Amino acid sequence: MYKLYYYPGNANLAPHMLLEEIGAPYELELIDRNKNAHNSPEYLRLNPSGRIPVLIDGDLVLFETAAICLHLADRHPEANLAPPLGTPERATFYKWLIYLTNTLQVELIIYFYPHRLTGEEALAETVRKHAEQRISGMLDILDAQLQKSGGPWLLGEQYTAADPFLLMLSRWTRVTARPAKTLPHLGRFLGRMVERNAVQRAFAQENLPQPWY
Amino acid sequence: MYKLYYYPGNANLAPHMLLEEIGAPYELELIDRNKNAHNSPEYLRLNPSGRIPVLIDGDLVLFETAAICLHLADRHPEANLAPPLGTPERATFYKWLIYLTNTLQVELIIYFYPHRLTGEEALAETVRKHAEQRISGMLDILDAQLQKSGGPWLLGEQYTAADPFLLMLSRWTRVTARPAKTLPHLGRFLGRMVERNAVQRAFAQENLPQPWY
Repeated sequence: MYKLYYYPGNANLAPHMLLEEIGAPYELELIDRNKNAHNSPEYLRLNPSGRIPVLIDGDLVLFETAAICLHLADRHPEANLAPPLGTPERATFYKWLIYLTNTLQVELIIYFYPHRLTGEEALAETVRKHAEQRISGMLDILDAQLQKSGGPWLLGEQYTAADPFLLMLSRWTRVTARPAKTLPHLGRFLGRMVERNAVQRAFAQENLPQPWY
Repeated sequence: MYKLYYYPGNANLAPHMLLEEIGAPYELELIDRNKNAHNSPEYLRLNPSGRIPVLIDGDLVLFETAAICLHLADRHPEANLAPPLGTPERATFYKWLIYLTNTLQVELIIYFYPHRLTGEEALAETVRKHAEQRISGMLDILDAQLQKSGGPWLLGEQYTAADPFLLMLSRWTRVTARPAKTLPHLGRFLGRMVERNAVQRAFAQENLPQPWY
């Protein structure tokens, strides 16, 4: 039985969608950000950076969303959520998953919390505006990859753990000046994603309101 | 024959050290940042984000340093640079490699190029100072992991692809107010790293001057 520490709509959403795809038993445990629970001593013992989510798998305490996605894909090869080890397809899968986590995810965190980078609210707005521009350029790169792969998924024919990760981050862009859904290939990708039963179940369990992206 | 596009001391250093550990044939191709070669149309066709490095492996064109490290480890299981698929050790390996790329690596890029986040040099210094503080906190987390793992390497007994990655980023901190080498466990780790022949060969080939970290 897995346990996923979550807060609705946070970075837990990608592993949550994967757990639903896989069909493995799991439980959710709310970390109430409104009560600063992610900075409690108990939670910091699980993840010293205080970020959500954490996955518990037996004795394993795992943080970093992309690592959780990789681990779930590896543990359930029958779900076919990652290409086979040592193949070019596997390398390309790593490439896009890591691109998502160290560019778009990071930039979105800067967009939402620019004051962490400045300590001054007045400068924060400048930082936020620049982040918004860079996010837009990253979405162009992802849109081009969807075009190049031929779809329906980020890597082409195979649905992988990178797809729910992309949906999760695309959803976060809905409040920016140029949301992911306004790009042609990304927009169609997002429409396909929310048709998946596993995706719908995860969104419903987190009580995420419409519009979903 | 692999080809690694590089610039001395850039993010190519981690895959370069891995190629030396593995002993596979490869060639290096310089991307001269001083001539803005990383933003040339030819290079942007390999990596649309313009970042260094890119690895060529047959028909595969791979960017994202952490993805290159994972791919090299997977392609050469005999080198034992990553734990077996589906194990808790593999998950922990993912966790730290991804932590390194989406926190410390990103934060160091902000430290070195703060104007990208502000567009104004005056604000850039504030952003840089904040980045320096956050880098220091991340080094504490890594130092604690080295203590917890018991060493000699980031994951404990097994030397993995995460270790050269950590050396590479630690090296970049040498110009900050609190370099990685000043932390007790990190300092000893770095000393062990540069005793490795493969590490010494990669540093020599990139003509990196002393001090190495």
